[in-house]
Amino acid sequence: MINTIILGAGNVATHLYQALEKANGITVLQWYNRNLDPLQQFKNNVDITNDITALKKADIYIIAVSDDAITKLSSQLCFQDRLVVHTSGSVSISDLEKKHQRGVFYPLQTFSKEAHLNFSEVPICLEIERKSNFPILKDLAEALGCNYYKVNSEQRSALHLAAVFINNFTNQMYRIGHEITESKGVEFEILKPLIKETAHKVDIISPFMAQTGPAKRNDKKTIQKHLNALDKDIHKDIYELMTKSIKETHGKKL
Amino acid sequence: MINTIILGAGNVATHLYQALEKANGITVLQWYNRNLDPLQQFKNNVDITNDITALKKADIYIIAVSDDAITKLSSQLCFQDRLVVHTSGSVSISDLEKKHQRGVFYPLQTFSKEAHLNFSEVPICLEIERKSNFPILKDLAEALGCNYYKVNSEQRSALHLAAVFINNFTNQMYRIGHEITESKGVEFEILKPLIKETAHKVDIISPFMAQTGPAKRNDKKTIQKHLNALDKDIHKDIYELMTKSIKETHGKKL
Repeated sequence: MINTIILGAGNVATHLYQALEKANGITVLQWYNRNLDPLQQFKNNVDITNDITALKKADIYIIAVSDDAITKLSSQLCFQDRLVVHTSGSVSISDLEKKHQRGVFYPLQTFSKEAHLNFSEVPICLEIERKSNFPILKDLAEALGCNYYKVNSEQRSALHLAAVFINNFTNQMYRIGHEITESKGVEFEILKPLIKETAHKVDIISPFMAQTGPAKRNDKKTIQKHLNALDKDIHKDIYELMTKSIKETHGKKL
Repeated sequence: MINTIILGAGNVATHLYQALEKANGITVLQWYNRNLDPLQQFKNNVDITNDITALKKADIYIIAVSDDAITKLSSQLCFQDRLVVHTSGSVSISDLEKKHQRGVFYPLQTFSKEAHLNFSEVPICLEIERKSNFPILKDLAEALGCNYYKVNSEQRSALHLAAVFINNFTNQMYRIGHEITESKGVEFEILKPLIKETAHKVDIISPFMAQTGPAKRNDKKTIQKHLNALDKDIHKDIYELMTKSIKETHGKKL
């Protein structure tokens, strides 16, 4: 049995709690947050606390708070030499207070309150200072049914940066598509199969191979027609820049 | 029984042939292409021809050639007053020669030779000049198991433009993610669940609601860290522009 304590009450903490609570061989001993309100709904299932000095002894302390708050919270923990991990993609392992056995348990996924998520499909990026701590983090990931990957800090940063392009910027592309169709009274719904297929395709072939469209073909007529049709300057700028990027990738003359 | 003839041999034509050939109540009478080579592999199953004057009488002629070639090909057809449709997102219905009964049968999806596609998941955007032609195009879409939508030319153009953002530009975001991870020796594989979840999320909540990340939070520290970490100038430019776009959408001060 692995005893865990979760610190924080944001999206990652909440999804993680719900997954750990269901996992075999795992106990969530305690759930800490500075403010108890968001934890109240779980108080019948788990020991909740807002007293940092009242934390029990556990095998792993999982800090799932905002990036800026990680260092301070880790230094406020009143014990030492226990395994303390954070869940951030961009914070260094050495930003955790050094009195702890430090690690990172980074679930590479987009979490939001509104969307249900099957946690077992979340890849976990693991980082540790002390080799002997690897088995327990691996066991934790496995108990959740997750694939895990051992990465170093530089690799984790690269993944986090790539995730911004792949998740945040892609989602903004969806948003722009939504704006364009809405302005002509067309249902965004019609585009959903295309969204799915675009994502599905790169499961099978590389993004390089999967590219199609006017930029790839260097179809100047269509590109000009599209630029003329866009109402917002920033959408024109994005169209031009992404077209340039695709042309560069595929070796077309600019 | 609806008798069809396909003109063209690109990705759309090929996927369409394969789907029509399997559909109940549909016959592909003939398949025309200027160059017979790409059709040879199908010659045992369908009458293939490269002679535009030898086209049989059919209920629908489906022109699935490149945008630039549609007008010319439609004018070369040696008959008149029959139903001729093209499959393009961006070509006007009136770019078809006016001696025909004109229509558009636009499958809004990304087609490539390498990736198998379940055609029944492709939404079909229909446009017609003569109301009496609607039932047969609707029947054709239904025989393929597709959802269909009646749209006008302006709406179809908007969908085609939105599709560039949602498909081509999104795919380029995947490509950039691939480049970033590859440069640090990390498997792109780790990002695939995130790609899927990003696409899946907007099935349930709007792209506006689904947005997360440093730009949405206006997390200047992480944004600066990411900009410093990017090697290529064009990736920096894209990061800055997409961050600006997300901030504008979510009303953050620039």
